[in-house]
Amino acid sequence: MSDLQKLIMLPGPTNVSERVMKAMTQPIINHRGDGFRNLYGGIIDKTKRLFQTEQNVVVLSSSGTGGVEAAVWNLMRPGDLAIVPVFGEFSSRLAETVELAGGTVVRVEAELGMTPSLEQMEAAVREHPKFKALYLVHNETSTGVAVQYVQEACRMAKEHGAFAVVDAISSLGGYSIPVDKWGIDVCVTGSQKCIAAPPGLALLSVSNDVVKYAKEFQPKTRYFDLSRNAEYAAKGETPFTPSLPLFYALNEALNEVFEEGLENRVARHGRMSESLYSGVQSMGLKPAAAKEVRSRTVVAVSYPSGTDDLLFRRTLDKEHGVVVGGGFGPFSGKVFRIGCMGLINERFVQRTLDAVSVTLEKFAAT
Amino acid sequence: MSDLQKLIMLPGPTNVSERVMKAMTQPIINHRGDGFRNLYGGIIDKTKRLFQTEQNVVVLSSSGTGGVEAAVWNLMRPGDLAIVPVFGEFSSRLAETVELAGGTVVRVEAELGMTPSLEQMEAAVREHPKFKALYLVHNETSTGVAVQYVQEACRMAKEHGAFAVVDAISSLGGYSIPVDKWGIDVCVTGSQKCIAAPPGLALLSVSNDVVKYAKEFQPKTRYFDLSRNAEYAAKGETPFTPSLPLFYALNEALNEVFEEGLENRVARHGRMSESLYSGVQSMGLKPAAAKEVRSRTVVAVSYPSGTDDLLFRRTLDKEHGVVVGGGFGPFSGKVFRIGCMGLINERFVQRTLDAVSVTLEKFAAT
Repeated sequence: MSDLQKLIMLPGPTNVSERVMKAMTQPIINHRGDGFRNLYGGIIDKTKRLFQTEQNVVVLSSSGTGGVEAAVWNLMRPGDLAIVPVFGEFSSRLAETVELAGGTVVRVEAELGMTPSLEQMEAAVREHPKFKALYLVHNETSTGVAVQYVQEACRMAKEHGAFAVVDAISSLGGYSIPVDKWGIDVCVTGSQKCIAAPPGLALLSVSNDVVKYAKEFQPKTRYFDLSRNAEYAAKGETPFTPSLPLFYALNEALNEVFEEGLENRVARHGRMSESLYSGVQSMGLKPAAAKEVRSRTVVAVSYPSGTDDLLFRRTLDKEHGVVVGGGFGPFSGKVFRIGCMGLINERFVQRTLDAVSVTLEKFAAT
Repeated sequence: MSDLQKLIMLPGPTNVSERVMKAMTQPIINHRGDGFRNLYGGIIDKTKRLFQTEQNVVVLSSSGTGGVEAAVWNLMRPGDLAIVPVFGEFSSRLAETVELAGGTVVRVEAELGMTPSLEQMEAAVREHPKFKALYLVHNETSTGVAVQYVQEACRMAKEHGAFAVVDAISSLGGYSIPVDKWGIDVCVTGSQKCIAAPPGLALLSVSNDVVKYAKEFQPKTRYFDLSRNAEYAAKGETPFTPSLPLFYALNEALNEVFEEGLENRVARHGRMSESLYSGVQSMGLKPAAAKEVRSRTVVAVSYPSGTDDLLFRRTLDKEHGVVVGGGFGPFSGKVFRIGCMGLINERFVQRTLDAVSVTLEKFAAT
């Protein structure tokens, strides 16, 4: 990536390699033919390795939000109870999606910059032992915090005969999430985060239990029907016309993931986020998240008081070609967020830190 | 397009120009920034011209099926009545989608290769005057027939205070469908048909009435919420992360549409389908559709008895590089379908007819 090109340090979409970009321009083919079956079959094999599952995976032609909606509509019936930790914009949306499907939500809340504690989760489960599903956002993109007890929470769900659903949209690939080992029934991620493909695809692992349940239950959505999608995926097809160029790109991005190795990629995300946190702290800035729950894929940083958020981000973009995200809700205007995802490397980190430092100095001088 | 490249004569996806393909490789940008707002704003202006509407349009990151699902979930409440002409696979699916949303469906049926008559539609409306919506597939991709009375049917719906919804997935751009003039509340099309962009986007016109209705009604789907999508579209944004490369491609494909001119494009689809019909007939083949309802975008052709469908299509593909579609349901194995969409021109038509002719002669000789 040339220094003349903009550096996309958003919490998704993220930078995409030349090689993945070029893959999109491969010819249009019949999605009911061998060419597509080979392509999607290869994607499925690699996606299983990514989720560390031997059960089912599907790729939906939609954003991650569509994937989360699928995870709700295939499990929740009106009156079903779900336990949902709520600690930011995306976990809050997830709770609302469950309610739209007719579910009753037990919200386990935490203040922004934190996650609910495992003790809070245990208390919620004790109080509502007949819950149908746990819906857990692993990494709250809006505040830059990550839940530290995914495995324990999923174990609790399974012990109560509930489904364990994990929204790992902004984390999978930057974190290792062994789906089968942790007993996750549905895990959702997006193409445009740690996998470093363009936006437009949702990747889901789907346990055999969920496929069976959804097949009997018959969800009201055809487009996001997970058992149907899984049945088609098993023969290398999608039930509806796939976003072909994005499948080409995803395939190439997954090739890059496994050429590097999943463990190496996860470790790199860890190192790079440490560099970002220590870099901003050495400028006197404070991470917005509490230390023990800091995300390694979204680095949220509190502004020095009086900093104009829009002007800061515009300056970073126009004068340094570095694009970062703003804050959400109560964090709006008070926090900027640096994506630490996908292709993230030392040069990206240094260029970002330099741009932040120079811009803050300029702001302080005026 | 070089003769060495495969000619995609499927009823979608279709051939995509180099220029549109290249557009996909433009840089990843922030979908909450000016760059994307300019891109989507331009797409919206052109999409309004395509639908001939001054009301709302939205682009959804999903296949056309997702767009149809949106058109159902934003209007139908449990117990609502819908009138649905059913005359092939896609109109049948549409009726089922309405039922999944809790609607009651009055099916107005016709045998394959025909459409229900306008008289049948009038009778259905007389018998069920309190219907909530008419869901009309304009062009039944599975059989190659097109409804000839879209305007009249929509007028009937409006006269009864019902919503008029038209699935024009495989027709808009090959046919002129003046949405405002005909009183269509929701019209759905796909990126990968007559617009000649890659697959992955659904384009919808949404009347002001539907935006207002859906806003009060609050559909149960967030991803496909039309009022929310329309509100965001009005400021050049999407509520959720858009399939950015496909938006770049769509923008360029729409530029091509209006450089040619919509009227010219529609006329070209008409001329090319006439050449295809007369070409296959001159070989002694019969179109599968009755003459008065033949589609100008999907040319369905009955095989001479005894022709092996899979072998025929494989020979066409392997020996001539021409890819056509097979039949659906009762037409399966008995019909092949030629897409007459998007970039379709004299050379494509001739190459296809030559390949069909040579292959049939070869089959007859053995």
